[in-house]
Amino acid sequence: MIGRLNHIAIAVPDLAAATALYRDTLGGDVSEPQTLPEHGVTVVFVNLPNTKVELLEPLGEGSPIAKYLDSNPSGGMHHVCYEVDDIIAARDRLSEQGARVLGDGEPKIGAHGKPVLFLHPKDFNGTLVELEQV
Amino acid sequence: MIGRLNHIAIAVPDLAAATALYRDTLGGDVSEPQTLPEHGVTVVFVNLPNTKVELLEPLGEGSPIAKYLDSNPSGGMHHVCYEVDDIIAARDRLSEQGARVLGDGEPKIGAHGKPVLFLHPKDFNGTLVELEQV
Repeated sequence: MIGRLNHIAIAVPDLAAATALYRDTLGGDVSEPQTLPEHGVTVVFVNLPNTKVELLEPLGEGSPIAKYLDSNPSGGMHHVCYEVDDIIAARDRLSEQGARVLGDGEPKIGAHGKPVLFLHPKDFNGTLVELEQV
Repeated sequence: MIGRLNHIAIAVPDLAAATALYRDTLGGDVSEPQTLPEHGVTVVFVNLPNTKVELLEPLGEGSPIAKYLDSNPSGGMHHVCYEVDDIIAARDRLSEQGARVLGDGEPKIGAHGKPVLFLHPKDFNGTLVELEQV
């Protein structure tokens, strides 16, 4: 069912500093920042040959990333995103197997303009899993 | 400098249960377990079309994963591994930029039989970074 690793996401307290780190120290190819107010984040992508790293900084009130940074002030690995062909079929299969889908269980439109769902980290060894239909 | 994302590693308290989760619930292609006594881990790889997820269970006394699981009993994202062409050149560049290399700074042979180094998570937004020469 799961296909490509679409991205890994890293929460960071200072997006400009993190972008400079990935660009200058690690020599990565970084995007311009994109503000996504409906997700409460500003995002920079580090484009690798086979996948992406998504650097996430909180944006606005109630950002889910702000809560994460309260517990992890210097940042950390926030989630992984796997691609699926059919997000509704994936959701139904996961629910049948007892995995919990976050929110109301309906896909939302994610950072790439495609339907996404998040799965409860307690059901996946402490790892927040995003599924994206591609 | 950084090339492909070679893998993301997830520490798990029960490798058999995690393997079943990734195989049966997420529908991933999982490897047989491999014991790596010199690294203090037993590993299962989830082979995705573009990269791998490495599931890590502690093996033996003093496993670095055991310490991680003490703080994160249900598991969690442990590290990310980027490929580099020349690990010595990468190390020297990183050191010049102020990033700390763990251990004695000399590459060790990793799970794939290739030279690896780990970078201090405090220098990379709370993310433990492995570099592997390919």
